[in-house]
Amino acid sequence: MNLDLSQLTHWRREFHRFPETGWSEFWTTARIADYLEKLGCFEILMGEQIINPEFVRGRKQAVVDKGLANAKVYGMNEKWLDKMGDYTGCVAVFDSGKPGKTVALRFDIDCVNVTETTDPNHIPNKEGFASINEGFMHSCGHDGHITIGLGTALWIAQNRDKLTGKVKIVFQPAEEGTRGAAAIAASGVIDDADYFASSHISFCANSGTVIANPRNFLSTTKIDIRYHGKPAHAGAAPHLGCNALLAAAHAVTQLHGIARHGEGMSRINVGVLKAGEGRNVISTEAELQLEVRGENKKINDYMTEQVMQIAKGISIGFGVAYETEIVGEAVDMNNDAELVQLVEEIALQQPQIHSIDDYAFNASEDATVLGRRVQDHGGKAIYFILGADRTAGHHEAEFDFDENQLITGVNIYSGLLQRLLG
Amino acid sequence: MNLDLSQLTHWRREFHRFPETGWSEFWTTARIADYLEKLGCFEILMGEQIINPEFVRGRKQAVVDKGLANAKVYGMNEKWLDKMGDYTGCVAVFDSGKPGKTVALRFDIDCVNVTETTDPNHIPNKEGFASINEGFMHSCGHDGHITIGLGTALWIAQNRDKLTGKVKIVFQPAEEGTRGAAAIAASGVIDDADYFASSHISFCANSGTVIANPRNFLSTTKIDIRYHGKPAHAGAAPHLGCNALLAAAHAVTQLHGIARHGEGMSRINVGVLKAGEGRNVISTEAELQLEVRGENKKINDYMTEQVMQIAKGISIGFGVAYETEIVGEAVDMNNDAELVQLVEEIALQQPQIHSIDDYAFNASEDATVLGRRVQDHGGKAIYFILGADRTAGHHEAEFDFDENQLITGVNIYSGLLQRLLG
Amino acid sequence: MNLDLSQLTHWRREFHRFPETGWSEFWTTARIADYLEKLGCFEILMGEQIINPEFVRGRKQAVVDKGLANAKVYGMNEKWLDKMGDYTGCVAVFDSGKPGKTVALRFDIDCVNVTETTDPNHIPNKEGFASINEGFMHSCGHDGHITIGLGTALWIAQNRDKLTGKVKIVFQPAEEGTRGAAAIAASGVIDDADYFASSHISFCANSGTVIANPRNFLSTTKIDIRYHGKPAHAGAAPHLGCNALLAAAHAVTQLHGIARHGEGMSRINVGVLKAGEGRNVISTEAELQLEVRGENKKINDYMTEQVMQIAKGISIGFGVAYETEIVGEAVDMNNDAELVQLVEEIALQQPQIHSIDDYAFNASEDATVLGRRVQDHGGKAIYFILGADRTAGHHEAEFDFDENQLITGVNIYSGLLQRLLG
Amino acid sequence: MNLDLSQLTHWRREFHRFPETGWSEFWTTARIADYLEKLGCFEILMGEQIINPEFVRGRKQAVVDKGLANAKVYGMNEKWLDKMGDYTGCVAVFDSGKPGKTVALRFDIDCVNVTETTDPNHIPNKEGFASINEGFMHSCGHDGHITIGLGTALWIAQNRDKLTGKVKIVFQPAEEGTRGAAAIAASGVIDDADYFASSHISFCANSGTVIANPRNFLSTTKIDIRYHGKPAHAGAAPHLGCNALLAAAHAVTQLHGIARHGEGMSRINVGVLKAGEGRNVISTEAELQLEVRGENKKINDYMTEQVMQIAKGISIGFGVAYETEIVGEAVDMNNDAELVQLVEEIALQQPQIHSIDDYAFNASEDATVLGRRVQDHGGKAIYFILGADRTAGHHEAEFDFDENQLITGVNIYSGLLQRLLG
Repeated sequence: MNLDLSQLTHWRREFHRFPETGWSEFWTTARIADYLEKLGCFEILMGEQIINPEFVRGRKQAVVDKGLANAKVYGMNEKWLDKMGDYTGCVAVFDSGKPGKTVALRFDIDCVNVTETTDPNHIPNKEGFASINEGFMHSCGHDGHITIGLGTALWIAQNRDKLTGKVKIVFQPAEEGTRGAAAIAASGVIDDADYFASSHISFCANSGTVIANPRNFLSTTKIDIRYHGKPAHAGAAPHLGCNALLAAAHAVTQLHGIARHGEGMSRINVGVLKAGEGRNVISTEAELQLEVRGENKKINDYMTEQVMQIAKGISIGFGVAYETEIVGEAVDMNNDAELVQLVEEIALQQPQIHSIDDYAFNASEDATVLGRRVQDHGGKAIYFILGADRTAGHHEAEFDFDENQLITGVNIYSGLLQRLLG
Repeated sequence: MNLDLSQLTHWRREFHRFPETGWSEFWTTARIADYLEKLGCFEILMGEQIINPEFVRGRKQAVVDKGLANAKVYGMNEKWLDKMGDYTGCVAVFDSGKPGKTVALRFDIDCVNVTETTDPNHIPNKEGFASINEGFMHSCGHDGHITIGLGTALWIAQNRDKLTGKVKIVFQPAEEGTRGAAAIAASGVIDDADYFASSHISFCANSGTVIANPRNFLSTTKIDIRYHGKPAHAGAAPHLGCNALLAAAHAVTQLHGIARHGEGMSRINVGVLKAGEGRNVISTEAELQLEVRGENKKINDYMTEQVMQIAKGISIGFGVAYETEIVGEAVDMNNDAELVQLVEEIALQQPQIHSIDDYAFNASEDATVLGRRVQDHGGKAIYFILGADRTAGHHEAEFDFDENQLITGVNIYSGLLQRLLG
Repeated sequence: MNLDLSQLTHWRREFHRFPETGWSEFWTTARIADYLEKLGCFEILMGEQIINPEFVRGRKQAVVDKGLANAKVYGMNEKWLDKMGDYTGCVAVFDSGKPGKTVALRFDIDCVNVTETTDPNHIPNKEGFASINEGFMHSCGHDGHITIGLGTALWIAQNRDKLTGKVKIVFQPAEEGTRGAAAIAASGVIDDADYFASSHISFCANSGTVIANPRNFLSTTKIDIRYHGKPAHAGAAPHLGCNALLAAAHAVTQLHGIARHGEGMSRINVGVLKAGEGRNVISTEAELQLEVRGENKKINDYMTEQVMQIAKGISIGFGVAYETEIVGEAVDMNNDAELVQLVEEIALQQPQIHSIDDYAFNASEDATVLGRRVQDHGGKAIYFILGADRTAGHHEAEFDFDENQLITGVNIYSGLLQRLLG
Repeated sequence: MNLDLSQLTHWRREFHRFPETGWSEFWTTARIADYLEKLGCFEILMGEQIINPEFVRGRKQAVVDKGLANAKVYGMNEKWLDKMGDYTGCVAVFDSGKPGKTVALRFDIDCVNVTETTDPNHIPNKEGFASINEGFMHSCGHDGHITIGLGTALWIAQNRDKLTGKVKIVFQPAEEGTRGAAAIAASGVIDDADYFASSHISFCANSGTVIANPRNFLSTTKIDIRYHGKPAHAGAAPHLGCNALLAAAHAVTQLHGIARHGEGMSRINVGVLKAGEGRNVISTEAELQLEVRGENKKINDYMTEQVMQIAKGISIGFGVAYETEIVGEAVDMNNDAELVQLVEEIALQQPQIHSIDDYAFNASEDATVLGRRVQDHGGKAIYFILGADRTAGHHEAEFDFDENQLITGVNIYSGLLQRLLG
């Protein structure tokens, strides 16, 4: 394998054809592992080696089961299944054998629940690498992330003798919904990292630019609340029911009224509500899907606590059983200046990069959970944005990005390793 | 004292001048006791002899204190104060010394919080016996009830040798708001009664008619809920508050949504809501005054339980302390046929009565609490309506009733005693 | 064709195999029409001859389209399609050519959305006439109703020369959800009827009994409310959205708080609520499925008006567009004494009937809409219950009824015609 | 009159004795006018010369009437009453007769609804100048503001020949609740001002410091909503009522759920809610007192519009009449750099001032309404804080401030005039 655009494009297009949604990236994980194995210098960690089951967020067994069945149909290398157990994703560990720092890099691998456009001008259609998995598409660019991760692994393999310390390449499942990072962080697999780096391709930045220090990552928690009531005939005996739908409606009105936090931005949204079985039956089942956000973790925690308190109060007031489930989370994070400066220097050395831009992120990304974990253990972290022209917005059916930037991505990561471990 | 209309009118007008609100009928109780004492054949019970403090409903100490101060100004006979202790009302017990049945009669003695009209054509103004206690008025006719009770006592005194068994005449405080009966019932003072009778003057019936068997007494519970929160500046730190006003508003929306009972009529009304200290402060205090009703005790109990559950759920959801207080209660009651027939017979023997009418009460009266207590102990009970023309609706400032019917009232009660104990 | 149990059972079992849900009874309607045509003495009315499109309730085009496709697969006689147009159901008119009264009979023809049990002891399984349409089943006995209607038509054909006046046999679509009657009533097709009769098989009555005069038909209106908002990102720009989910939740809390009606029983239930597209998007679509009921039409109308008022207020308060749709309705109805007496007499002449029972219906049936229409035009109406043993409750997968009662049903209807038109 | 601390202290203590609440500062206005008249160089504008009645906020006629009666008792100079008409406050206009700039200065004159402490160590008690108007107290320091205004007027009178252009000294009523400024701004009386200055004494700053450029003035609107329903007996005929209390409770739950604004800080608080007449009556009257705030006028306007929309929607949904009243308002304002620099220079020239501090105001002040009006007409504006030690927090019964700073205040304003008009 040569580390060139042709190889990177090949990888990207292969992964683009087989998009898999969060926690069901079985084919994807196996394929990554196949390539890593070929490189010959990585220990490959999987399953509970890298996942703490207690912190797994937003994983639906039915989705996973269907994903696994599909992965087998797509011809995954089933030898990895034992090692994975229930969980997708892997961590490739390179140990130089020499003393030195430990650097953790993180690439997310899941797709989005979107059906790819059939527009014949869409390049994946033209070139024949569109999604074969209807309803799913790599329309957020994580196929590019996997590729940059593999490219960086290839660079390590080719430069293994010049490096000191260790590198841990995290191929993370389930970034969409900010679900996957918490379980990897809690496994402790990167607790020994001195440096952490991750990035997103495209986003708001065009080809030729890098945003080395995006500001305003929002803390967020994604929560499901479910109420379970007692049915009764709405005409004959309404007093015998415990009304889950009515409970849920009142919960919504209370949740949206959580007091604003005086110290900074807070958010609440119940985005989905499904309740009830029939017009003439007191409803027994209701589900709310909601999220809170905060300018920082303190504010986000305040919002989360209020949600939990309201969920419980409603359950008591209406005599309905309930559960709450945290199905996703991300935190705020500030990049460390040392790494920002390094990324800026390296980026500006790339012929394709002509400017370093400023940007307020104002959204959430669960790489922050891993970055903050490293910072909390005394390390330094960065999350940057790698500019790339795109044909449509992220998560849209027409999304595609400028593949030329894949090589820039690999160059920045390998540049970082050279400076930190060279 | 002669048992004639002149005496009865004298009494009624005296009590009309000194109206006292529920639980503060100190002047009234003392005056009743003075008259009973003069009759020479009654044991007079007061205070905790007739009141179980645990079941005292809707008594506000500040109102009581002000009432007592007024009563002294009005020249009450203060010798009764020791016996009363904290509680107004009294029970006059006549014991014939001969074996026989026990009959309990009940007359309520409190006034309404209404300011009497200054219309010069209003008879109390014309004849100079209008309320001297501004803001309070006997505009429900309880001055007439007291009078009929005293008239019946006078009849007993005059006929003491002809009677067997015992009579217990209950002068009950705080009927308005259905507050006083529960504590008297719970004291056990009429648990030995074989018969119980009570009545209301006027109501929906004109002079010349008696409603011997009004139907549809509603069970009701009157409840106050108070929430206590934590203040915070609404601009600077809204998240530090626990919002009692917001809690109360949500409580109202939940309370009015309590499911209808499939087996019969139910009611809920939050009639008063007061909350908040200032526009720019997260509110710390809120009070709801509400009532529930039911076609029967079972339905009313269902409504009450739902209220209590909601009150608690809200407290938890909003992190506010709370209390609930039952400030009044009445139950449904069915008159016993034996007494209905007796009252009809006696009534039709009165020259002033020309018809027995039918009526659905569809409201609440706490005499039912006493009546049901007697029924539950194996006795029989009746509540009837004594027709009397009126000048305005009950509780209105222009209310007055036909005093000629006072003698009819005494005749019905004395007729009952003659038939049951003669 | 002989009018005997063998013929009736044959019909019932044929219709049982091909259950079709409300407004999609294409196969069923065509098959009924085929049989009626063979009898040779009926004019067959269909489509807008019997349906006023403005009053069609609860018809979903997608369900109809699928139903029609299935009906073709089942081999319906497609010659009727033109006449039907968009609407199922038919009315068979018999005109004796002699002066006389007009009698309207009504039989409902739709099935229930239930999958029939696979229990081998279930007779339709044993005898091989179970539903071939998965997810749908005649588990309310309307297959029996169709059969009795056809049997009565056969009797008319056999007795055509002895009859005077007219008979109109209404085969009504979409009774489930009380959806179909309003459109037929509004077409005016039975406005000239002097008598109206309809019935339900089994229900609460066993073989051998008839309930000639069930009481307490509840008025009901089934309503859908849909809110249409404006999306916005819940993190970045919540203020730009118009939140349909939040509007819907507040609507629910207001709807359940509609004041009880002082004059009698009222009901409200929002039984289904679906809202929202994603956790992090201000929701744009919400649907509420609800019903109100009342002891009589006045109370039901009060409830309906309150619902409409609340739906509108919410739309204004939240800046969301909305629509309301009445998807079903039934009214209260009192049977006319003349017909009750006739049915009782005729029923007791049947060897299989041993008693006439009393019953409070306490539910809703849209035959009342047709019966009240006839009454409002000066005619007389009856709805009765024809007892029949059943193996499980109506709408359950194990439901089956005693086919022996089909002949009793035909005998009662033909008896009525003999008495009224003979 | 000498312009010295003795004169200033005399004035401050005189005004401290006669505190008057917003819109009822009759004694105060007359007394200010008396002093201004004596100075001989001011035209005194009053009533509708300076007040646009359409923009008068939060004025209660009963409070005004009582205030006027009191003012007469306190011996106000009643000759000013005609000129005042219904409105308190005055503007003193000094015209040098020479061409030049126009400078507007603003001093607020109302007190707070607080009863002054009786602590004998409280200096107003010790020195005998405590409030004689129970329930009211200058506990926000506006007595000091009046004094600085009069001192500045005295300085103008003494330096009248050296000045060019014009000075307009605004003595504004009703700052508490941010009620008075809107009507003065809307009168246009300071539309010709090139410069505007106002200040607060003490607040968060101690003696010796000046905050020349406080940041983060919040826009705010104070709103009352009143609902008027229809009474009905809660037991007998709840359906006949239109429930104002229930409407108000639902309004609260909707108001607190107004979506956060994505562009910056927003606030909502319903601080007071009073509703209902009695437990057993469907409530007919309800009042909500609330405020919204925004980081800027755009956000505050968004909040206000949402409130108005919700108020209307509720009125329609519940069939209750309603009104909304804007009872107060303030806007955000940025000080102009030229004036900030001037105030800093002048302040640091005062022997008593040793530092210029920075501060985020994070609250609302209606001087901003006047300042923004001047800015919108092309002028420049400043609002600064004059440090002064205090004995307790503003609005507390024990509040008092360091009178020595009054002379500093006058010096800053006269310094400004010297620099701008000298």
